Amino acid sequence: MKKVKALGRHLVAEFFECSSEALDNLDFVVNSMRQAAEEAGATIVDSSFHRFLPHGISGVVVIAESHLAIHTWPEYGYAAIDLFTCGDEVNPWKAFEFLRIKFDAKKTSVVEHLRGIYSEIGIPETAPHKV
Amino acid sequence: MKKVKALGRHLVAEFFECSSEALDNLDFVVNSMRQAAEEAGATIVDSSFHRFLPHGISGVVVIAESHLAIHTWPEYGYAAIDLFTCGDEVNPWKAFEFLRIKFDAKKTSVVEHLRGIYSEIGIPETAPHKV
Repeated sequence: MKKVKALGRHLVAEFFECSSEALDNLDFVVNSMRQAAEEAGATIVDSSFHRFLPHGISGVVVIAESHLAIHTWPEYGYAAIDLFTCGDEVNPWKAFEFLRIKFDAKKTSVVEHLRGIYSEIGIPETAPHKV
Repeated sequence: MKKVKALGRHLVAEFFECSSEALDNLDFVVNSMRQAAEEAGATIVDSSFHRFLPHGISGVVVIAESHLAIHTWPEYGYAAIDLFTCGDEVNPWKAFEFLRIKFDAKKTSVVEHLRGIYSEIGIPETAPHKV
């Protein structure tokens, strides 16, 4: 089967039955997300995290190869996680596995999107994902 | 048909055949994304944008109701855009329409994800999207 060429891969992940304590600990969430970027082989450009009252954290790690994002609902043991990476040298599934263990998610669901499919953009298969 | 209850809606959008000039103009992209958040009815918490060399911009607007993200490939006229909002008072489709016009996208494709479906989390339909 021929591999569909795309600029990036984006995992839209749902983490259920996580540790509520972990999901509400700002330092823990920041460090986990930044470490996940490194696990995936990404280069961190910037990050921005915020804790809301009475609970819940939102944050994004901008990487040279796109971004990782998280939104947590500690009261529900739930987190919405996005792992979007470009290029063949970065693997979002490594970040996924790392975070699944970190947050102790008992159940997950993931949809993998190919972003920027070459044939849809109308560029040749030999085009680089960055110039 | 019964409406599936979820914490948020996430549009995974592909913008094709955009204005390359617009996609490579940092000020224009920042302002467009922040205005898109306002169009959707969201509250901006923070934003982080970066222009790469020789071209391409990545950026995220963290909103109280999740996030908006963009990654542009001006050389291909392509942008990967994510519009993730929570709550019934914010409408990601308004941000989508606004950006489609701003970037002059001749072709788009969108997948709408429900994030944090109540029955999957295991919470009652009467649970609030934030406490």
